[in-house]
Amino acid sequence: MERALIGKIAEYENQEALIKGRVFNIRNLGNIVFLVIQDYTGTIQVVVDKSVEVKTGDAVEIVGLVKKDARAKSGFEIKGSKVVVVSKNIEELPIDLSKDDLNLNLNTLLDYRPLSVRHPKVQAIFKLYDILLKSYETVMREYDFVEIKTPKLLGSATEGGANFFKVKYFEKEATLAQSPQFYKQIMVGALERVFEVGSVFRAEPHFTTRHVNEYVGLDAEIGFIADFYEVIRMLNVVMQKMFLEIEKEGKPYLDLYGIELPKVLDEIPCIKLSEIKKIIKEEYGHEVAEGTDIDPHGEELAGKYAKEKFNSDFIFITHYPWSDRPFYTMPSIPNPEETCGFDLLYKGLEIASGGQRIHSYDELVSNMKKKGVKAEGMEFYIDTFKYGIPPHGGWGMGSERIIKQMLNLESIKEAILFPRDVKRLIP
Amino acid sequence: MERALIGKIAEYENQEALIKGRVFNIRNLGNIVFLVIQDYTGTIQVVVDKSVEVKTGDAVEIVGLVKKDARAKSGFEIKGSKVVVVSKNIEELPIDLSKDDLNLNLNTLLDYRPLSVRHPKVQAIFKLYDILLKSYETVMREYDFVEIKTPKLLGSATEGGANFFKVKYFEKEATLAQSPQFYKQIMVGALERVFEVGSVFRAEPHFTTRHVNEYVGLDAEIGFIADFYEVIRMLNVVMQKMFLEIEKEGKPYLDLYGIELPKVLDEIPCIKLSEIKKIIKEEYGHEVAEGTDIDPHGEELAGKYAKEKFNSDFIFITHYPWSDRPFYTMPSIPNPEETCGFDLLYKGLEIASGGQRIHSYDELVSNMKKKGVKAEGMEFYIDTFKYGIPPHGGWGMGSERIIKQMLNLESIKEAILFPRDVKRLIP
Repeated sequence: MERALIGKIAEYENQEALIKGRVFNIRNLGNIVFLVIQDYTGTIQVVVDKSVEVKTGDAVEIVGLVKKDARAKSGFEIKGSKVVVVSKNIEELPIDLSKDDLNLNLNTLLDYRPLSVRHPKVQAIFKLYDILLKSYETVMREYDFVEIKTPKLLGSATEGGANFFKVKYFEKEATLAQSPQFYKQIMVGALERVFEVGSVFRAEPHFTTRHVNEYVGLDAEIGFIADFYEVIRMLNVVMQKMFLEIEKEGKPYLDLYGIELPKVLDEIPCIKLSEIKKIIKEEYGHEVAEGTDIDPHGEELAGKYAKEKFNSDFIFITHYPWSDRPFYTMPSIPNPEETCGFDLLYKGLEIASGGQRIHSYDELVSNMKKKGVKAEGMEFYIDTFKYGIPPHGGWGMGSERIIKQMLNLESIKEAILFPRDVKRLIP
Repeated sequence: MERALIGKIAEYENQEALIKGRVFNIRNLGNIVFLVIQDYTGTIQVVVDKSVEVKTGDAVEIVGLVKKDARAKSGFEIKGSKVVVVSKNIEELPIDLSKDDLNLNLNTLLDYRPLSVRHPKVQAIFKLYDILLKSYETVMREYDFVEIKTPKLLGSATEGGANFFKVKYFEKEATLAQSPQFYKQIMVGALERVFEVGSVFRAEPHFTTRHVNEYVGLDAEIGFIADFYEVIRMLNVVMQKMFLEIEKEGKPYLDLYGIELPKVLDEIPCIKLSEIKKIIKEEYGHEVAEGTDIDPHGEELAGKYAKEKFNSDFIFITHYPWSDRPFYTMPSIPNPEETCGFDLLYKGLEIASGGQRIHSYDELVSNMKKKGVKAEGMEFYIDTFKYGIPPHGGWGMGSERIIKQMLNLESIKEAILFPRDVKRLIP
């Protein structure tokens, strides 16, 4: 007998069908027992005799008659005639998956991730994440970007910074990629428009709700741009198309969280850093020091302002100071103390960072000197700029931060299957 | 003036257009000069006055009149009236990109990768690779697989083996993931059908044409399988759909290599390891020791046999010995010296490895004992099997090996943008 998928059970009305799935819930009414069975296409109620021995969490195969039932969510019920437990729960589940909400503290949720991920609301996070990945790839390809995969084991640190993990690499030492920055810039010289979905490693000893030490970056780089606003406009389109797609395909999962997705504006507001600092001081009395990046609370207030003033969940902040941005960032004209660098905030949290990059060899070398960045190990990158790299720019986006903000999750770690922080390498 | 894409130049017939791109080639005919300009959508010939100063490799913006020209490949030519070099070649290119074939030895090709990747035949490899990634994601989603992203920084080695890289992880030691094996099996317990496209790290000190130390794995895992042939059939469908898509979208790139893609059979031949060993001994006089995996030359001959006998570029080899397969592989019934493990060969090279996994906790623990594998650091994985993991199986596939074989490249390193081997961490 061929397996019947629960999501397509209507095709089996008034027929015997074989379903396979997990016992998600059991209601014992004395003589009869109601089982809720879940497979990857849906859930259905199965009525079985009280003599049937199953436990919540068992993997089962059930043969039974499919009957219409107006009271059932799926519109159907199965009168189970044969139940085979193909894989048993040999211990009581340490967490209760039958409640509408798990209500576990973060550490318990993550310690028991192999089981907590079976809960519908947790599954929903990762179904949305899947749609996010798919929609990013789709929109990038729609705009002729070519997906590249760049190495994560590097001979040198990409940002010249200190926050990288070291790897023993045979007789040498390697570092783990903090971003595909160098490689995507190099590839602009060949394919002009590239994107990557890949692992990013940051050795920052953070203890916050928005940092992890390993995440999945959504990167892109665009050649022959007129200015960095071309990068901003492209990212605006990407966000718009992604959110439309997630809204369409992800509705049942968003519904579990009571979330209605915002319309992403055709023109997300775009405000200079120095300007937004003034605004949040005037509007909310929050002061940020001059010449520095905005602090997390300041970002929240910038998000609040974007919502109140423009009814936008998103805001671009531009012209970050030269001192705060990496050596490859294009300084702004006429004020080189500022850069052509921007951040994108979603509900007051930075989800992407980008900008125009320096494309002239001489400017790059001179900017490195000014910043005190050494060329050692990066010669292959710097030398590429001797050979006509066009004006270009791009972004790096944190995929999991988007989901965190979308569902108002308390920590980014809830949006990652098996997150990594200073203390967490397991599971 | 808006940028005109070269691929859409027909829309500008008899009009002035602004194109942006790289000077790919220059032919100087005395009074006039022909430039071949390339952007991410195509190439076109531009006629300019001899006074124009450009060099091969320069990034330029050109305004000119678009005229039909039957002799031109694209059907059009541009009479350039204004040429601006937006990014100059400040040094002579160290390699000659204007030839039909680069003809560089592998090390030179890779040392100069930032430039060699600009050659059309090299670009073609990575355009095909992009289509490969896209088609894998598409077919997996078509069959309701959910994409997951699993951590690459692990608290323990996944295979209990020795070939892993060690990472200094704050006060601890981490290892780099040799595969998403544990995580995708765990996720079968929640989402039933999962796939991943992700980095794989192998610390094997190989010097071959088919190994690298970092590659991109195409993984999948399927719950509620009847037997491992269900995994094989699914992978068969995946290969079929991927190759159809690559043939359709990748034709111009395949043409550069004179490659016509094979039809992937509805039923790729499927032969037991013990059987294929006999066959290649009888047919080709090549003997492989008993109880072991097949050697690379034996794989080539198995591929040759599949081609000669079934006209198939692919062959599944099944029932690998228990001693050669990892501890989670399901032993075969009735002969537990063999496993429900298989490899998929493409033109005589293993491109995927898979099988049914053990889903019973007791069997898993007992198999680990027999193999001498310690549970330390893997408890989260093993414990999951206490909670009703259904019968399941899957595969891990090497994405770059597919491209290597497809284009008959001499080394897998040609199919990777910035490959990593024992000696190569740069570029």
